[in-house]
Amino acid sequence: MKIKRIAISTGGGDAPGLNAVIRAVVLAANQRGWECVGIRDGYNGLLMPEQFPQGGLIALNRDRVRGITHLGGTILGTTNRGNPLHYPVLNADGVYEEIDRTDELVERFRAAGLDALIAIGGDGSLEIAYALAQKGLTVIGVPKTIDNDLDKTVATFGFHTAVAFATECTDRLHSTAESHQRVIVVEVMGRYAGWIALDTGVAGSADVILIPEIPYDINKAAEKIKERDRHGRDFSIVVVAEGARPVGGDFIIQGKAIGQAERLGGVGQQVASALQTLTGKEARVVVLGHLLRGGSPTAYDRLISLRFGAAAVRALAEVQSGIMVALDPPNVNYVPLAQVAGRMKQVPLDCDTILTARDLGVSFGD
Amino acid sequence: MKIKRIAISTGGGDAPGLNAVIRAVVLAANQRGWECVGIRDGYNGLLMPEQFPQGGLIALNRDRVRGITHLGGTILGTTNRGNPLHYPVLNADGVYEEIDRTDELVERFRAAGLDALIAIGGDGSLEIAYALAQKGLTVIGVPKTIDNDLDKTVATFGFHTAVAFATECTDRLHSTAESHQRVIVVEVMGRYAGWIALDTGVAGSADVILIPEIPYDINKAAEKIKERDRHGRDFSIVVVAEGARPVGGDFIIQGKAIGQAERLGGVGQQVASALQTLTGKEARVVVLGHLLRGGSPTAYDRLISLRFGAAAVRALAEVQSGIMVALDPPNVNYVPLAQVAGRMKQVPLDCDTILTARDLGVSFGD
Amino acid sequence: MKIKRIAISTGGGDAPGLNAVIRAVVLAANQRGWECVGIRDGYNGLLMPEQFPQGGLIALNRDRVRGITHLGGTILGTTNRGNPLHYPVLNADGVYEEIDRTDELVERFRAAGLDALIAIGGDGSLEIAYALAQKGLTVIGVPKTIDNDLDKTVATFGFHTAVAFATECTDRLHSTAESHQRVIVVEVMGRYAGWIALDTGVAGSADVILIPEIPYDINKAAEKIKERDRHGRDFSIVVVAEGARPVGGDFIIQGKAIGQAERLGGVGQQVASALQTLTGKEARVVVLGHLLRGGSPTAYDRLISLRFGAAAVRALAEVQSGIMVALDPPNVNYVPLAQVAGRMKQVPLDCDTILTARDLGVSFGD
Amino acid sequence: MKIKRIAISTGGGDAPGLNAVIRAVVLAANQRGWECVGIRDGYNGLLMPEQFPQGGLIALNRDRVRGITHLGGTILGTTNRGNPLHYPVLNADGVYEEIDRTDELVERFRAAGLDALIAIGGDGSLEIAYALAQKGLTVIGVPKTIDNDLDKTVATFGFHTAVAFATECTDRLHSTAESHQRVIVVEVMGRYAGWIALDTGVAGSADVILIPEIPYDINKAAEKIKERDRHGRDFSIVVVAEGARPVGGDFIIQGKAIGQAERLGGVGQQVASALQTLTGKEARVVVLGHLLRGGSPTAYDRLISLRFGAAAVRALAEVQSGIMVALDPPNVNYVPLAQVAGRMKQVPLDCDTILTARDLGVSFGD
Repeated sequence: MKIKRIAISTGGGDAPGLNAVIRAVVLAANQRGWECVGIRDGYNGLLMPEQFPQGGLIALNRDRVRGITHLGGTILGTTNRGNPLHYPVLNADGVYEEIDRTDELVERFRAAGLDALIAIGGDGSLEIAYALAQKGLTVIGVPKTIDNDLDKTVATFGFHTAVAFATECTDRLHSTAESHQRVIVVEVMGRYAGWIALDTGVAGSADVILIPEIPYDINKAAEKIKERDRHGRDFSIVVVAEGARPVGGDFIIQGKAIGQAERLGGVGQQVASALQTLTGKEARVVVLGHLLRGGSPTAYDRLISLRFGAAAVRALAEVQSGIMVALDPPNVNYVPLAQVAGRMKQVPLDCDTILTARDLGVSFGD
Repeated sequence: MKIKRIAISTGGGDAPGLNAVIRAVVLAANQRGWECVGIRDGYNGLLMPEQFPQGGLIALNRDRVRGITHLGGTILGTTNRGNPLHYPVLNADGVYEEIDRTDELVERFRAAGLDALIAIGGDGSLEIAYALAQKGLTVIGVPKTIDNDLDKTVATFGFHTAVAFATECTDRLHSTAESHQRVIVVEVMGRYAGWIALDTGVAGSADVILIPEIPYDINKAAEKIKERDRHGRDFSIVVVAEGARPVGGDFIIQGKAIGQAERLGGVGQQVASALQTLTGKEARVVVLGHLLRGGSPTAYDRLISLRFGAAAVRALAEVQSGIMVALDPPNVNYVPLAQVAGRMKQVPLDCDTILTARDLGVSFGD
Repeated sequence: MKIKRIAISTGGGDAPGLNAVIRAVVLAANQRGWECVGIRDGYNGLLMPEQFPQGGLIALNRDRVRGITHLGGTILGTTNRGNPLHYPVLNADGVYEEIDRTDELVERFRAAGLDALIAIGGDGSLEIAYALAQKGLTVIGVPKTIDNDLDKTVATFGFHTAVAFATECTDRLHSTAESHQRVIVVEVMGRYAGWIALDTGVAGSADVILIPEIPYDINKAAEKIKERDRHGRDFSIVVVAEGARPVGGDFIIQGKAIGQAERLGGVGQQVASALQTLTGKEARVVVLGHLLRGGSPTAYDRLISLRFGAAAVRALAEVQSGIMVALDPPNVNYVPLAQVAGRMKQVPLDCDTILTARDLGVSFGD
Repeated sequence: MKIKRIAISTGGGDAPGLNAVIRAVVLAANQRGWECVGIRDGYNGLLMPEQFPQGGLIALNRDRVRGITHLGGTILGTTNRGNPLHYPVLNADGVYEEIDRTDELVERFRAAGLDALIAIGGDGSLEIAYALAQKGLTVIGVPKTIDNDLDKTVATFGFHTAVAFATECTDRLHSTAESHQRVIVVEVMGRYAGWIALDTGVAGSADVILIPEIPYDINKAAEKIKERDRHGRDFSIVVVAEGARPVGGDFIIQGKAIGQAERLGGVGQQVASALQTLTGKEARVVVLGHLLRGGSPTAYDRLISLRFGAAAVRALAEVQSGIMVALDPPNVNYVPLAQVAGRMKQVPLDCDTILTARDLGVSFGD
């Protein structure tokens, strides 16, 4: 089939670089004489068009994507709700249940005169993309996650910007920690994988880094801080991924599980409370959270976003489908979606960044 | 008395620019043939010398202050504990009580061969400086607060850096708020005065700004957000000072005080929960907290810090005492400490920044 | 006359903050029920409408100014050509001569149904604004210059952003200067006034600062560098305003005026060549030039731009005319254009920033 | 041989990340019980010890490398003079000639009780390292160049920081170009390879990119700018590598080689002059030069620097020699110096970043 009109969707949480991908797709498609449209809010622009007074599809041309490379967010809107594989629908009893609307989506896609889909997203979005490809749609995936936990690509866009900003924040906290002789705990994103925490911790000269891949003993983390104290370094920086977990799933301090009061708040707050108790030093927590998701992409993220977008169009021109563009430096290549969907890339315990951290004297609480 | 040796102390929380003040004082003093020493951790270097194995006083010369202008924190260390007017001492019953150690401090100061003091700090530190001046010490104050709530100076150093970074953070959150159609609440410092929230909110294009000076009705804040929704702006940014309070001191939502569960967390969390309930939109909170206190000072803060430091030394050369250097743009001038100590500078309700915000359509929840 | 429709013009070189002024004017005017239009490219939108296929006036409403606060440049376009007081026109002999088109401008302004003008600009633009006010137009001026050389206002927007970026650049050059034991000369804007060079030099820890207000002896600047060498500081940073001039208007090195070859390039290049000859050290020059004019305004510049824009509209509402809004911290106030037009604000030689620089050991080459 | 004491040298121009490498080497070596020293100014600390009053070797321990990860430059000093393979020496006739001092260097290295060398540098430094390894020294190379033109490693540290800052500068120039309808030419480093220009141009949305690998026809570059004008984009950004060259080695404009006056200045100035002539638009040039070499490394460059430093020490622990650590994402691996020395990595004309640029509509003047 000759391509004349392609669609772009952006799913899941926003990430710096989404707009750069969109711009590259539109310009590269236009050069080949193809039209582009954007589907609003994931796939809701097609599945729930009545929600969009101005239409669920946005025509995307050269003028519409002008000057957006450096803008955070996505001009298409995005959503965490409306996964067509598990679409929430009110049933007769007034209760939400989830149904598979992918067949309907394929039908509506074709009815809209669309020939191919470029699906930009993370784990969940690529699983949908894979399902749609299996149902016959021409689909190219573009990997996006702040957390960098997608398999088969060395990096996803958004991750680099998150690490750069988290490192800047950690730098700022160093001076306060040192002036006040405090422990400062920085909580960053990373529910299942510790990439952000690891890279931020190493680049930001953290003393302790806690990640989901390495269950931690809080006493060992505290020991590192006390050892620093003994050497005249009377402050410490701890970087914690939101998904970090203690060994055995529970805090054990001085032989006792810690009390309820100390466990309020997220993992960062828990770690700070425990370290204050164990070290006798003032501890404070800062939760970076959504600060890591927005903002202008770094030059690096702009570059890989633009390269991903252009490569996705080239893949369509080469009559590819069911693949994801992936970074394999210095190149961008193609990987079957079948090898990606449902895979999680965690930090290997023997990767050289972990070894580097240990060489620098960082404690992982293990 | 001819000055030969002066001391510098930095009190209270750290602020970007402290090191720049110290550098300017040392270089300006050296040019006049004076020696400089720094007192460690507020006045503890004099009051508790036994805590400092390498001595409670640090000799400060040209080499020691080299390259520190742009560093956050303070090379002298600082503390929120050890106010000589209310010094915590264990009494015979093993209970802390507070005693006035200023006479002792004056004595130790003179015993150390010190001729004059440059006291850098906020409200509390300047009150101590004033007390010491009244007891006969030659004292010059230098105003420091992140919050900008000191009277008789147009700006304190540290404030500008805090606003610059809080605005950058607010920019980052805009893209997420917009892409996800959310309300994002940014909580900034400001227990008694709303300067940071006001300037950040205006510079960062917030839709709602809540400050201690204007008790807010959460329903009015919610109304602003709903009005935006009706005009197709389906996201909002709310900037809240940590000291903002509802009218009457309590949340009233739809005729009922909100429940306990919704009040956990700080003011930012409370506001986010209430707005989510009232508007039906997803709301998220980001607490900037300590991020605003550290980091490299902006060029502006470096400049006023250096100007304050040099002016403090010039004041000593002019045989001044009991005064604070103050910014009265384009000049730095002197203000009696008597007019400063114990005064709080709140945002005037008719200042042109408030008028500007209202002209821009910002709601203060009033 | 009751105002219904106002116009905005932006003249001269672009400056960070122009768009923020425009946004504030439009929102503040809309709140009062007034319409706004922008005149394209200075006054050319009125004087040369045929140059603008889509019209010389741009309707400005809430949607048009959305999200522009942080954008550099001006959405109206600007120009250094087309001053209505000295408009270049081809005469019968095919030669350009300058004519006064202000009467015509007033006429066209009224014919377009415009009731008042907010003129944003520097020296030249405010002179035009004053002329138009004298001819009966209702005019409010808003001060803009990167160089900060306008009288009667403590700051103009754009200046702060220029100093912040020039300081960041100077920071970057420090590490190279130090690692390579070099002299690095940073040339910044400032043809008639040295504000940028002075503030950048002090904030950026320069060793030598050369400004138009203080004619320099290059041998004295070289002496400072050699003195540093003798003290083991084998690198130096020199910040030079483009308008800095040697004493007597010429370089004298070792008794001879320097040769032609050494004078190629701008003032920065000349200074670097002379310092290399005089000190025997490698010298390099970096010309910041247009880098200081673009980019996103700092939080500070956004704030004063928004405050200026809103104050200009309030001034119209208060039936003012022939005045400029001005920064008199902490307030914005009004100053008659008659007191501003044609005045240049140079750096006073005894201002406290100069004294500070001298206290820090900076040489001005005097 | 059991290692007890290792040396570090940093050669050639400085690059952001050098200090991070040094810190990682020192901490990783200390963990293994090895001592570290730094050789000052390339190898001059060993070859010309009399130039260093405090000794040509600097003892490096944990305290000496504290807090240097984010500092630009190198605490060891560096130099472009003193290559031991071609050492400049005054001969009997008072003329400099170059001699090979590597044998002497090996001897002095051993006499100083040094067991292994970690040589951080670019092309030239790695050639020296290879020569020393061939003479029997235990040597590990660490690749450093701003220009990214070293073979067998996906990236060198310093490059990323240069691209990030050049992109930021290009962003700033966009607003001025657009407001004033100008052509702005940005000249960046890259004498033999166009990596910085290419990545900056793509990330910074340039319209024309000129690199050494693609000889350009200035008329084709001008044509791109005129085409933009015809589509209402009346400004353009041109990014030029300092080593870019016209087809045939000369400018040909409208059938004539351009005159001498237009060729003064560097390549950026030449291109700007030619484009102004050819397009009739105002053109300006900004030369970033040394701004790209200094400054704090980005988080990415800190990370790869730390990883390189730790990997170099691990390589020694694994009894490697004659190899360079290299980035092969996600890993750091080892490459024989024999495969690296004297190789230049240029931009492949069919790499996906070039394809991306063409898809985005960028002209390379070909």
